[in-house]
Amino acid sequence: MQALGLGATIGILGDGQLGRMLSQAASRLGFKVVIFGPDAESPAAQVSLASKVAAYTDEAVLARLAERCDVITFEFENVPASSLDYLVGLGATVAPSSKALRITQDRVLEKSFAREQGIGTVDFRAIDSLEDFQAAVAELGPPSLLKTRREGYDGKGQVWIKSADDIAAAFDSLNGRPSILEARADFTQEISVVAARGWDGAVSTFPIGENHHVGGILSTTLAPAQIAAATVAEAHAIARKVLEGLDYVGVLAVELFVLPTGKVLLNEIAPRVHNSGHWTQDGCLCDQFEQHIRAVAGWPLGDSSARCTVEMTNLLGADILDWRRLSAEARARLYVYGKDFSVKEGPRPGRKMGHINRIKS
Amino acid sequence: MQALGLGATIGILGDGQLGRMLSQAASRLGFKVVIFGPDAESPAAQVSLASKVAAYTDEAVLARLAERCDVITFEFENVPASSLDYLVGLGATVAPSSKALRITQDRVLEKSFAREQGIGTVDFRAIDSLEDFQAAVAELGPPSLLKTRREGYDGKGQVWIKSADDIAAAFDSLNGRPSILEARADFTQEISVVAARGWDGAVSTFPIGENHHVGGILSTTLAPAQIAAATVAEAHAIARKVLEGLDYVGVLAVELFVLPTGKVLLNEIAPRVHNSGHWTQDGCLCDQFEQHIRAVAGWPLGDSSARCTVEMTNLLGADILDWRRLSAEARARLYVYGKDFSVKEGPRPGRKMGHINRIKS
Repeated sequence: MQALGLGATIGILGDGQLGRMLSQAASRLGFKVVIFGPDAESPAAQVSLASKVAAYTDEAVLARLAERCDVITFEFENVPASSLDYLVGLGATVAPSSKALRITQDRVLEKSFAREQGIGTVDFRAIDSLEDFQAAVAELGPPSLLKTRREGYDGKGQVWIKSADDIAAAFDSLNGRPSILEARADFTQEISVVAARGWDGAVSTFPIGENHHVGGILSTTLAPAQIAAATVAEAHAIARKVLEGLDYVGVLAVELFVLPTGKVLLNEIAPRVHNSGHWTQDGCLCDQFEQHIRAVAGWPLGDSSARCTVEMTNLLGADILDWRRLSAEARARLYVYGKDFSVKEGPRPGRKMGHINRIKS
Repeated sequence: MQALGLGATIGILGDGQLGRMLSQAASRLGFKVVIFGPDAESPAAQVSLASKVAAYTDEAVLARLAERCDVITFEFENVPASSLDYLVGLGATVAPSSKALRITQDRVLEKSFAREQGIGTVDFRAIDSLEDFQAAVAELGPPSLLKTRREGYDGKGQVWIKSADDIAAAFDSLNGRPSILEARADFTQEISVVAARGWDGAVSTFPIGENHHVGGILSTTLAPAQIAAATVAEAHAIARKVLEGLDYVGVLAVELFVLPTGKVLLNEIAPRVHNSGHWTQDGCLCDQFEQHIRAVAGWPLGDSSARCTVEMTNLLGADILDWRRLSAEARARLYVYGKDFSVKEGPRPGRKMGHINRIKS
């Protein structure tokens, strides 16, 4: 693809905080941004030139987006891949591709893809029936983790199977949705690599983040992670294999488990900018949002080296109500996503309302 | 004033690049932004929730702005002070005040104010007639600098008087506008201090920038400036006197001349964020734009200490056409203002199209 010129227009499917921060990064480079999403005053629409309020499958509105935008991208992985195909069919330039989206939308396809690339994953079985499920638990043993193949994030749609007695209830909870059973990984750390690839095949990887989850939701990321150099090298090599195997254009995140041996297993691929990359806003000259925009726009990838160590902490639900104290912290930068909430009831528990980056060195 | 709550709305009079970067900073803190200016797709409107397209004196539209916004500020000093008074009359909260704006809009009032605060300035005379002018040149001598009292920036509306022979033509060029004659300052450096004051009287000063002008327009700022500690202390003390003397709320910039003795003279006060403060975007955790938003919103002032040395270079006119090379620089961050221009003719010479911050250490 030819690089987008100055002042070109970028479309973003999805209107949450990731779209918001992508839009802000695009504006910094002089691009105009059109947001496509369900809400006219969404976090992303608040900071963008225009927004198209429609369902992701609304072909008439998708067509208007295709006409207006020089390149179209997305901020979350549950955009229908068929909508990307529709845009491409109209002649639009879309990145990442619907192929990358299809594979990463399905946990069985994702892990199978990883293994084809020579990347280790936990053992897993596809579950389409109660018989599959019983056989899989017999093979992988409890404890093992049942997940839906599609959708589900932040721990939603996941059930731990602690004994064979859990099988019947867990199967019922699926309501017939195709699923996957994953063996338990005895990992010591969860890390992630955020990395980018351009249309020209250039790859750039950010330093690695060490993630701490609470209740299935990311709580903090410390980066660059304090881990062995060999683990860093392996993690970066995995990210490169994923980018190249998917013929990917844009930023993605690879979540990894670090085993006691220092070896790593792929847990999940997020085909988008990622919460565990928010630290780059204050830790790197080119953050993950600008890097994604550069990649999809055909601009040279930016400088992803670390300027300092950063600890990113998510502000979930009522955490944000503590903004007076948070905004007064030295050596820190606060990000608020502009999500409205009922003053009486406060933000919904667990809802991502903002984050704070604290400079550690 | 009580601090603005989460998600409050900030109005900005003016829609250029300063309004754009103020809006982006406000969004980062979760505020919603309404831009008031003459152009619907202006640099500032492109990144804001809403815009009101009207002349700055349009009372009906000002009234709608007052109704919608929790606080109203401005991005350039030629907003009519009477428009601020009108907003205040409607009950709006406005910062900085119209008093600060009136004084700094007029070079004679500005320098007289500085002297009342005990701040040194070049010698000057108000010029209302040819006789005033002749007498002033006789006292201050050529070379001296004739400027209009109001408006004029980036060297516009200024004429050097090199001999008494220049008086007649220079006077004609004024077209009867009230003016000021300034003695020449034999300065060795031009520096500026960007500083903020909150509603509670708290003051925060950024490290000092060393400015280089070309053809009357700022070309580069290097910060923190490599100057004597006593000069730094004097410059910061002057900024504090200006902030307190004007009972100022928000960010302002004080441009200073450094004399061979190390003493400084006040050249100009800009009652707004300033081009010589753009380096703070990459040199400080809280940049000048966020600091202004914090100040007018009643939030605690942010951390204005330097993280590193930065050289900011303005991208004027056709400079921006070199974006391919500029965007590929390591250790640098590029900012493009989203101003449209004719592809055939290119951007107007001298027009501020963007800037680049290069990290020097």
